[in-house]
Amino acid sequence: MPVLQKLLSGIGLPDPAPGLEAQRALDRLTKPPGSLGRLEELARRLAEISGRFPPTIDRPVIFTLAADHGVVAEGVSAYPQIVTAQMVENFLRGGAAVNVLARHAGAAVVVADMGVAGPLPAHPALVSAPIGRGTRNMCDGAAMTREEALRAIEAGAGLVLAEGGLDLIGTGEMGIGNTTAASAVVAALTGLPPATVTGTGTGIDAEGRARKVDAITRALAVNRPDPADGVDVLAKVGGFEIAGLCGVIHRSTEPGAAHVLEALGLEPFLDLDMRLGEGTGSALCISLARAAVKILGEMATFKSAGVSEHSP
Amino acid sequence: MPVLQKLLSGIGLPDPAPGLEAQRALDRLTKPPGSLGRLEELARRLAEISGRFPPTIDRPVIFTLAADHGVVAEGVSAYPQIVTAQMVENFLRGGAAVNVLARHAGAAVVVADMGVAGPLPAHPALVSAPIGRGTRNMCDGAAMTREEALRAIEAGAGLVLAEGGLDLIGTGEMGIGNTTAASAVVAALTGLPPATVTGTGTGIDAEGRARKVDAITRALAVNRPDPADGVDVLAKVGGFEIAGLCGVIHRSTEPGAAHVLEALGLEPFLDLDMRLGEGTGSALCISLARAAVKILGEMATFKSAGVSEHSP
Repeated sequence: MPVLQKLLSGIGLPDPAPGLEAQRALDRLTKPPGSLGRLEELARRLAEISGRFPPTIDRPVIFTLAADHGVVAEGVSAYPQIVTAQMVENFLRGGAAVNVLARHAGAAVVVADMGVAGPLPAHPALVSAPIGRGTRNMCDGAAMTREEALRAIEAGAGLVLAEGGLDLIGTGEMGIGNTTAASAVVAALTGLPPATVTGTGTGIDAEGRARKVDAITRALAVNRPDPADGVDVLAKVGGFEIAGLCGVIHRSTEPGAAHVLEALGLEPFLDLDMRLGEGTGSALCISLARAAVKILGEMATFKSAGVSEHSP
Repeated sequence: MPVLQKLLSGIGLPDPAPGLEAQRALDRLTKPPGSLGRLEELARRLAEISGRFPPTIDRPVIFTLAADHGVVAEGVSAYPQIVTAQMVENFLRGGAAVNVLARHAGAAVVVADMGVAGPLPAHPALVSAPIGRGTRNMCDGAAMTREEALRAIEAGAGLVLAEGGLDLIGTGEMGIGNTTAASAVVAALTGLPPATVTGTGTGIDAEGRARKVDAITRALAVNRPDPADGVDVLAKVGGFEIAGLCGVIHRSTEPGAAHVLEALGLEPFLDLDMRLGEGTGSALCISLARAAVKILGEMATFKSAGVSEHSP
């Protein structure tokens, strides 16, 4: 895995200094300490994660990865499989929700084919990195081999390396049937029952949701993924784009998302009942991150503004 | 009250057509119906409230009203009263949090002196509309007369009329001691105990919060505001800037805010633990509103993008 090794070799222990510097700067600004709440947390975390003070957001990129899923044969989605390819074309033309919200946030969108079944046009902006033409139906056996899962993870890491010089990454996905795979991954990793973590995806009815829960239950029984081995879980019940992303996924009304956040001890910055995917939540959060960075860079300090800091 | 009459005469029953048109447009866009969650609700509400389809956000303005409060004599704030005037100067120089976030959102800030006690410089951008030089201490009697409360409400309405042609309004406030007045208003209107609706404001300690709760309890006993008469409540335990705003206040960690939203049946679009005030929450929400408007204006439809709409 040379690409993964190269990526990991660049990762050291985070330096606590930029985060502490951000906190000291926030406390000098003309506002009661902590009164900008989670916007202050966001400014501090951007400094911590980037290792820079002040943090900057000059090149934010949303990676929207697309792939198809053999499990659609079980009737788990409200849309036909061809929509995955059609939506990739929509991304390339700039007409999808993630394009609109990324423009609003001043972010670029990188669209990658990780394994779309339908035909895709050659397009200069499309990164072609398919592992296959869709996964196999996880109800009949593993969705992909362990080797394919590792290649998908490596390809995702490669997308980031190929861009270079990024300072903020958003994640997004497109794949008819992929909330079934995602729910199966969550059930496998957390041990929660499929019915607890499975939602209605693009908007399937109660009967369709019952088919999803049943498909996931059968897939887990057939494959017995090892929750202690993330790659095993991804290979058996995941997807090419899910393996490619393997990162922080934004808040969603899909019930699995809440359980993952709880397991990770994370609280989302935005909670707007969104369930579209594509990276739309990331795009809105980039706009919020820009606001946090501007608080650090543009606000007056108590000293510069001559405002009294202490009680009478 | 000629200004209020003029304002109210322009208000008719909202026309349901633009909201319905927005909903139909949202359902034609390349996404599962409703999948952008509350961003879709925001787009629809902007059309309903403005009476226009497509809604536009060309002139958003945040009204930040400042005034002082006699109740500070009870030791209810972590900051001295002079900070109100100092922060108004900070607003006028553009160095406060609301200035930074308003610039981020492409919104203007109108700063109005509704009754600041400390000295303020003449400044072309400062709207001078003081009702007095701070309210009286509500623990000793009414904070203001009924006549003063009506003049403050009228002055607030006058600020909006004077701007003209606005399409989005944000509200903000500055006034040392004003969370004590705001908590008293909430307790009076909802009947909830002062201890339930009172928070730590700018960051006072537990002892200071106990003084706030005690001051509110005494003020309500001395004044007996009539919860059925909003002007009576504003006059007896409110403030000049609170009467001037009399509108939708953004989500805050101040506990009173949650009770008001519950009483109004409203759910905030953002919930970021902010408690600074000034209009900072409004500013962030304007950025979100712009995103909602762009979804309506820039996204491809199923038809224009050639994406399949129906299940297999």
